[in-house]
Amino acid sequence: MSAADLEQLYVHESVENVIPKEAFVEAFSDLSIPAELVGDGREYTETDAVVTYVPRPEFLDAGWVHCARAGYDAFDTEAYAAAGIPLTNSSGIHGATVGEVAIGCMLSLARLLHVYRDHQNATEWYTPKYERPFTVENERLCVLGLGTIGEGIATRADGLGMEVVGVRRSNEPVPGVSEIYDPDELHEAISEARFVAVTLPHTPETDGLLSTAEFEAMREDSYLVNVARGPIVDEDALIAALEDGEIAGAALDVFETEPLPEESPLWDMEEVIVMPHKGSATNRYHLDIAELVTGNVERYQSGEELRNRVA
Amino acid sequence: MSAADLEQLYVHESVENVIPKEAFVEAFSDLSIPAELVGDGREYTETDAVVTYVPRPEFLDAGWVHCARAGYDAFDTEAYAAAGIPLTNSSGIHGATVGEVAIGCMLSLARLLHVYRDHQNATEWYTPKYERPFTVENERLCVLGLGTIGEGIATRADGLGMEVVGVRRSNEPVPGVSEIYDPDELHEAISEARFVAVTLPHTPETDGLLSTAEFEAMREDSYLVNVARGPIVDEDALIAALEDGEIAGAALDVFETEPLPEESPLWDMEEVIVMPHKGSATNRYHLDIAELVTGNVERYQSGEELRNRVA
Repeated sequence: MSAADLEQLYVHESVENVIPKEAFVEAFSDLSIPAELVGDGREYTETDAVVTYVPRPEFLDAGWVHCARAGYDAFDTEAYAAAGIPLTNSSGIHGATVGEVAIGCMLSLARLLHVYRDHQNATEWYTPKYERPFTVENERLCVLGLGTIGEGIATRADGLGMEVVGVRRSNEPVPGVSEIYDPDELHEAISEARFVAVTLPHTPETDGLLSTAEFEAMREDSYLVNVARGPIVDEDALIAALEDGEIAGAALDVFETEPLPEESPLWDMEEVIVMPHKGSATNRYHLDIAELVTGNVERYQSGEELRNRVA
Repeated sequence: MSAADLEQLYVHESVENVIPKEAFVEAFSDLSIPAELVGDGREYTETDAVVTYVPRPEFLDAGWVHCARAGYDAFDTEAYAAAGIPLTNSSGIHGATVGEVAIGCMLSLARLLHVYRDHQNATEWYTPKYERPFTVENERLCVLGLGTIGEGIATRADGLGMEVVGVRRSNEPVPGVSEIYDPDELHEAISEARFVAVTLPHTPETDGLLSTAEFEAMREDSYLVNVARGPIVDEDALIAALEDGEIAGAALDVFETEPLPEESPLWDMEEVIVMPHKGSATNRYHLDIAELVTGNVERYQSGEELRNRVA
């Protein structure tokens, strides 16, 4: 941590990639230091904090830099570490946004809301087969990864009376999760689940984690929910599993290639819900990020450890 | 209650209107008395119980009659009362089924799942306006009527972090509901709600309960969810309120006329979810009803008060 206190918060205009920039600056009106919108070409000192979407070399002269998104792979974390400038990201605020999308999809798949919508668009009063609709209550959900999003799904699923289990490295208890499996017990964990929800980060270890063998291990009446990253799921294997009836359906907010190519068969599958990678979208995203930043300004000024420090 | 014990359970084949009749009879295999499928033209005695979808005069000779649906208006309750034959119905088993549909619709309206589905059907990768998606967490839900279904919605909404209030005659506490309004405080109750869910029975008092004045009292960014009965909502007033922006949208499983007529403008409104009155549909509906009947056979045999007695 720098010896100097922060005196100014700069909001780099690149934040407009994800949030309304003026409203974002406005959200700092009660902050202990002034906030100002800036573009490129400004110089920074160790009493300046910067919130930005894109990296710039001059930010390395500031006292602290906050990345206005969860993924910070564009930033040179080694350079920040070498310069002793803390870099923080915007993870940890997607539990409700993505959690609600995942829960909404599971309810849709069970209660047929997506099918009713299709028939609404065709002006058709539709009668489903007796065997088709079910309730998620008492059904088993297996959440792969129990970070903020996984926990956001788990607690909500628990509130719906689902039986929630999870897979992650640590077996530390998680609210709403009745049993935690080790990653090497993945097949056992997913084999009994009616829903498998993916909330893992995309890393070399998770790339293609769910493929043919995993879909074969899953129940034939089970559904995959991916709100994490596309490449964690082998998309060709998923399509084959759906076509062959190895699993019953899927809700997908992320894909190997985004936008999802027009020729993908996923678009046309009735039991596949295709979403445009907007799981975290919310009209108060700028307020959520501002809350994170405000908390970290306070921590910085009092010499405390910053939340979400990634370098 | 009759002095005689029950010796036989008859399942009238009319139950096939709502459930698979053979599977239903099969669900009684562990019952203390035999169960048998029957058609019309049989005679009954006071040691017989009958489960049926339709009323028949000869059922009035049985010891107990169970109606395999919640609405029993086709049955002559006065004749049952006069004959001293208990009539029971199948209410109280829709908390999860209809509750999950209502919750799924609220999540869809907030998180745009219905809109994403429309764009999926058009093979379009869609970007919503920043202002549009929101989370239901911390939003206020007002539930009109707090019977089984209302409570089913309330407890689930509470599990999603919503602020749940309700309207009903009794102010007895309900799990998940933070405040209960009296029916004469209806406008006050709905005026601050982001979602208003209708779970009332249709009676002369609730007919047309929600009309122009109520939609004006509601927030402009609010949504109506009706999973009860169509005529509780003045449909012309609802359509006008939606067209005029008095409210933001609706999720409707029930309508004044069902099937919803093709010419209804509701079919084509993006922010209206039209469902084919299948809120309670589930592949285990026959098991839920069988559980109710089994419990009542046990109560009958031990001289206890029957559940769901309506005459």
